[in-house]
Amino acid sequence: MSYFTLMSSSTYLEPIQEVTFAMIQMSCGPSLEANRQKAVTRIRIAAEQGAQVMILQELFASQYFCFTEDHVHFGLAESIPGPSTGIFSELAAELGIVIVASLFEKRAQGLYHNTAVVFDANGEMLGIYRKMHIPDDPGYYEKFYFTPGDLGYRVFLTRYGKIGVLICWDQWYPEAARLTALKGANVLVYPTAIGWDSSQDSETNEQQHQAWHIIQRSHAVANGIPVLSVNRVGIEGEIRFWGKSFACNAFGKVLCQASDSQEEIMIQAIDYSQSDHCRIHWPFLRDRRIDSYQSITKRFLDDES
Amino acid sequence: MSYFTLMSSSTYLEPIQEVTFAMIQMSCGPSLEANRQKAVTRIRIAAEQGAQVMILQELFASQYFCFTEDHVHFGLAESIPGPSTGIFSELAAELGIVIVASLFEKRAQGLYHNTAVVFDANGEMLGIYRKMHIPDDPGYYEKFYFTPGDLGYRVFLTRYGKIGVLICWDQWYPEAARLTALKGANVLVYPTAIGWDSSQDSETNEQQHQAWHIIQRSHAVANGIPVLSVNRVGIEGEIRFWGKSFACNAFGKVLCQASDSQEEIMIQAIDYSQSDHCRIHWPFLRDRRIDSYQSITKRFLDDES
Repeated sequence: MSYFTLMSSSTYLEPIQEVTFAMIQMSCGPSLEANRQKAVTRIRIAAEQGAQVMILQELFASQYFCFTEDHVHFGLAESIPGPSTGIFSELAAELGIVIVASLFEKRAQGLYHNTAVVFDANGEMLGIYRKMHIPDDPGYYEKFYFTPGDLGYRVFLTRYGKIGVLICWDQWYPEAARLTALKGANVLVYPTAIGWDSSQDSETNEQQHQAWHIIQRSHAVANGIPVLSVNRVGIEGEIRFWGKSFACNAFGKVLCQASDSQEEIMIQAIDYSQSDHCRIHWPFLRDRRIDSYQSITKRFLDDES
Repeated sequence: MSYFTLMSSSTYLEPIQEVTFAMIQMSCGPSLEANRQKAVTRIRIAAEQGAQVMILQELFASQYFCFTEDHVHFGLAESIPGPSTGIFSELAAELGIVIVASLFEKRAQGLYHNTAVVFDANGEMLGIYRKMHIPDDPGYYEKFYFTPGDLGYRVFLTRYGKIGVLICWDQWYPEAARLTALKGANVLVYPTAIGWDSSQDSETNEQQHQAWHIIQRSHAVANGIPVLSVNRVGIEGEIRFWGKSFACNAFGKVLCQASDSQEEIMIQAIDYSQSDHCRIHWPFLRDRRIDSYQSITKRFLDDES
């Protein structure tokens, strides 16, 4: 069975419209092996419950090492293909599921990326997306580790739809969501690792969560496609990762949301066909003024008024 | 007093940081003269309460005539400068306030725009913005009346800050907000006319309102600037305009929101200096991948995968 189900070469059937996703929100310990095993176990559980596409959180194989700049952490990286991709390729084929796995990629000596790998339901590694927008803030020193992606925005045609993959900090950029949507994504998925500093008050925490929630739901609204965000949970050093993984439909309506402190396997059916309805009732794509967007490739427009 | 307060030619003082806005949410009747008078009265009340910048809803001078395609409605348009601009120019000078007024512009015979005019606090007409994104849906036949704007995105340096003006349907386009923000806007304002069809159920109404709310708050988050949206209220034909004018701060936090059925003069202090804080703590502008956004000027990217 492929995305476009063909009865014969002369008969075209509609693409798959409803797909069941699993959003695997977990905490991570110091052992790569234990984290990988935890992810595998949860994927097996999700598959038993009927999930067809598995989304793991950002850098699920390790703790979030970017809380400090330490050369020793480069030892956590792996090649692609490598140990993790072998495991997930076999698992995808065995269970007949799609997997999106976020890895710390060692591309060459001294060249590392924050990379998501997409495995199709026959085990094929369809390709990778390298995180384009790299943050650097106290507790999130990612620019030290990751070279910004050089593959642009990508969608992956899987057995269960055309999946657009972006990673964490990308979520704050409407440009990234738009460009991925314009490539025909049925859905946007964001493996994520975001948390609260332990010194912060609860009002600040809530505002930060709200901003994160709003910006991602807005990508659904602006582009008329569902959005799924999968965040890690648990306390690592000074950071409490806030979980709250969620899915919203093509009009930004929240369909499900995980807790801020528990590991969860959240299973959610996503109806791709709603995009048809949204996009003809709220025809934003029809009216884009593409003749007027050129300056979005500029840093700032202080010379124009 | 100007935006940049100068003690002498050699002394630079900080720009104004806190400005009080009035968001004038009103219903409109069939008489242009009565609607204009209502707006003037409300602006006077708001000025007495300390408001410095007045935002009127979209096409405040008339009922929302775009509910049908009728050539007779072109008679509602006016030239710029014209009757309305004369009134608001005098009023701005008299009260020492900034006014953003949305008008149906007759630019030439057979050439009409949906246009916002900005008056500085000395009465000067600083310029106009012509709505770039024009909708056309049942009940909102704007493409029949308005030629899409040809002035691009604009900010207006007023006595009370650099005001970025966009109009209604523009609010669904992250590109429009981004480009206006990159021109150095301290704040984005959206005169708006959006409502519920009387045949809709309340769940649909709520989802539509939520999408509208989210997309505009997301522009605040993405760009680190406050956003104000001023919507009309009242029943006109089959449409119930839903009001709910609101302001949010530079991190998308809602500061105030009007009702869905009452006329209101909502007065809100806006702190421009919060953008400094937001933009260094959530440095999205720093990390934009401007090398990767070129294709945003394309209609769709179906030839790329």
